[in-house]
Amino acid sequence: MSDLHLLTAGEAARLIREGRITSKELVEDCLAQIEAREPAVQAWHYLDREHALAQAERADEAHKAGLPHGPLHGVPVGIKDVLDTCDMPTENGCALHAGRTPRRDAAAVALLREAGAIVLGKTVTTELAYYAPGKTRNPHDPARTPGGSSSGSAAAVAAGMVPLALGTQTNGSTIRPAAFCGVYGMKPTHGLVSRRNMLRLSRTLDHVGLFARTLEDLAILGEAVMRYDAEDEDMRPSAPPPLVRTLAEEPPVEPKLALVRTPVWGQAEPATQAAFAELAEALGDRAEPVDLPEFFAEAWPAQKAIMEADMAHNLRREYEAGRERLSPVMRETIERGRAVTAQDYLAAHDIARALAGEIDELAFAYDAILTPAAPGPAPIGTATGSPAFSTLWTLAGVPALSLPLLEDEDGLPMGVQLVARRHDDARLLRTARWLVSVLS
Amino acid sequence: MSDLHLLTAGEAARLIREGRITSKELVEDCLAQIEAREPAVQAWHYLDREHALAQAERADEAHKAGLPHGPLHGVPVGIKDVLDTCDMPTENGCALHAGRTPRRDAAAVALLREAGAIVLGKTVTTELAYYAPGKTRNPHDPARTPGGSSSGSAAAVAAGMVPLALGTQTNGSTIRPAAFCGVYGMKPTHGLVSRRNMLRLSRTLDHVGLFARTLEDLAILGEAVMRYDAEDEDMRPSAPPPLVRTLAEEPPVEPKLALVRTPVWGQAEPATQAAFAELAEALGDRAEPVDLPEFFAEAWPAQKAIMEADMAHNLRREYEAGRERLSPVMRETIERGRAVTAQDYLAAHDIARALAGEIDELAFAYDAILTPAAPGPAPIGTATGSPAFSTLWTLAGVPALSLPLLEDEDGLPMGVQLVARRHDDARLLRTARWLVSVLS
Repeated sequence: MSDLHLLTAGEAARLIREGRITSKELVEDCLAQIEAREPAVQAWHYLDREHALAQAERADEAHKAGLPHGPLHGVPVGIKDVLDTCDMPTENGCALHAGRTPRRDAAAVALLREAGAIVLGKTVTTELAYYAPGKTRNPHDPARTPGGSSSGSAAAVAAGMVPLALGTQTNGSTIRPAAFCGVYGMKPTHGLVSRRNMLRLSRTLDHVGLFARTLEDLAILGEAVMRYDAEDEDMRPSAPPPLVRTLAEEPPVEPKLALVRTPVWGQAEPATQAAFAELAEALGDRAEPVDLPEFFAEAWPAQKAIMEADMAHNLRREYEAGRERLSPVMRETIERGRAVTAQDYLAAHDIARALAGEIDELAFAYDAILTPAAPGPAPIGTATGSPAFSTLWTLAGVPALSLPLLEDEDGLPMGVQLVARRHDDARLLRTARWLVSVLS
Repeated sequence: MSDLHLLTAGEAARLIREGRITSKELVEDCLAQIEAREPAVQAWHYLDREHALAQAERADEAHKAGLPHGPLHGVPVGIKDVLDTCDMPTENGCALHAGRTPRRDAAAVALLREAGAIVLGKTVTTELAYYAPGKTRNPHDPARTPGGSSSGSAAAVAAGMVPLALGTQTNGSTIRPAAFCGVYGMKPTHGLVSRRNMLRLSRTLDHVGLFARTLEDLAILGEAVMRYDAEDEDMRPSAPPPLVRTLAEEPPVEPKLALVRTPVWGQAEPATQAAFAELAEALGDRAEPVDLPEFFAEAWPAQKAIMEADMAHNLRREYEAGRERLSPVMRETIERGRAVTAQDYLAAHDIARALAGEIDELAFAYDAILTPAAPGPAPIGTATGSPAFSTLWTLAGVPALSLPLLEDEDGLPMGVQLVARRHDDARLLRTARWLVSVLS
């Protein structure tokens, strides 16, 4: 077989299970694709071919021995280099963390290994998952950013190097690069995926993010990592959403979407405005324009207060010990964060809670909210673009998807963002599948 | 029968269940005791005799109809006037809240009603459960404070007006008045009792507190209110500790206590220092002096930063709309809280978490920590005394008991405080029973 690297994770796992391909063949093909594309894309921060192949061989031996297969048995995944790995360095895109070798896996990484996945390597992150860009370029146009902060994960999946990757999102770090690179990205409901042993910027805002080339793969990846972890203070023990099963179902009634422009609509570029006008027309009465109450505008300063204060706190050692080795944008953010008062911080949390409640109300009348994933296609240059179209949803902790359904006149991918109420992750995927079928 | 008001809650419930007394007789006797003692003690902020008797009559009718009894069927309880009641005003000891009539019960109050209890009335709190004293006097000496902020609950139980009462604790508001009034007081592990529809000073520090005249009654009261409530963000669904059953068991091996002076030992009055020297002698090698690491001294400024910042946030409407009707001590606290930075606030939370972990470690080697409940007996005057001996344990969220085992040379009660690791509430009660038997 050829082009194994283009298989979806679900197909690859099935073929391995059926003995029609081996994990080693799959991993070798992915490594060959990386060899071909990496000079232009630069998605990987750490990659040890021998270690990857050794994992694949172990997976193949387990198969031959008749041991049970996890849902990702033998399937390679990319891991953003802010999620700890016990067998590879984790340097958080930060010069101060060079040579850091954690002894434990991040909870989400350990769950992927448990599902049988091969941890192929660590993908490039911006500095400390914030704005200062890494080396990665957009697979569709090397003059453009892949978006950030999960730059390498989005680019690696888009470039066919790996079918799945983990990223993170504290503002727009999964949705935006997914949109810029033309892949599916998902930020599950806050508290559904453990953040243990992952770089902490903000307990309130940090999420694990998911990348794949199909909705089915997102569902498989999501199910693998949505497992209760008492060590993550924001998780609650509850049955995880049945993503794979729900995605495969037909919606019981035709979904209805709320078309939401958000208070940052003014930042949407002409290409996005035009694409959304077309979308609205194509959907007809299956989508209804909804204006958000004015109160929603408070999300942006609230997210900023929480993120900057939390970053100042969680990165205080880096700032105190080596601020001269941090980027200016990081230093300035931490310095703003140090000036936030506890009152503004607490008020911002009240806003976050209120917004989540308001979105629950709003989304009750609709299957999902349809809104841009980013202001436009990936900008030219190294700056990672604006997260503004994600800020509100991240702050509220609601699930969000970026779907690669649009392109600009030059063929550059643009994302459509679908958002639902908290814990409606499974229905959100099902609604997304419906939307894809309606628009194709 | 006479002196029904002196029955324990457990005995009273049993006699009612067996048809040997009625709830109405019990409530009438408690009301008579209140009539006799209230002029001197002033424990009640709101008391409606007719409403109390009507509840008792309904309990007696249910008994006659053969309906099932809860564990507190027909037993009167006092409720600190910071816990909402749907059938009585809740004024939080604050002029600005005069005439406030909530439509819903606090979660803990609703659970007591479900257990069959008669909500006799609302007990006096200091202003907004902080320092500015209410009218209540110490039942042992009207020249002295009952302690605060749960002044009326502690005094009402001590004066035989009611066998059980609910209070709250954000610093030392249950342990200190229990010690000053010579009753048993308990602050369960943070997150074991819901704070829904209770005055919020601080999510991190607020606890519901329990008052009774015996350990058995504390256990019955605790079991009635320890029920998971998803609306309290700090609760986790887990089996509640079996307080009543564990208290009735013998310790499997003889308990060992850690004698801990804490960094505020210098505030302990000569009476307390002498009493603790005697205690240590009486316990011999069943108690071992343990010095806390220096780090523990950070608890006091950390608790202050969290409490003051949270109070400034949660009482902002009161401050903004009517600061001139708040006491000077409340105004000054809120003003200090407004100046706390998010960095100090977040660092204080890290200290709280670290302390809880350290106490878990320390308490692992002992059945409980033995430490003063207050600097000395109740001071003369209206000021409610120092919470300093509670601060550390409240911040760490660990369970604490005040046992009325000591008195000074004038016969004034002094408390012994027993503390355990988080979620060891049941064993803490059992260890307390053992300590009482050893010392009697």
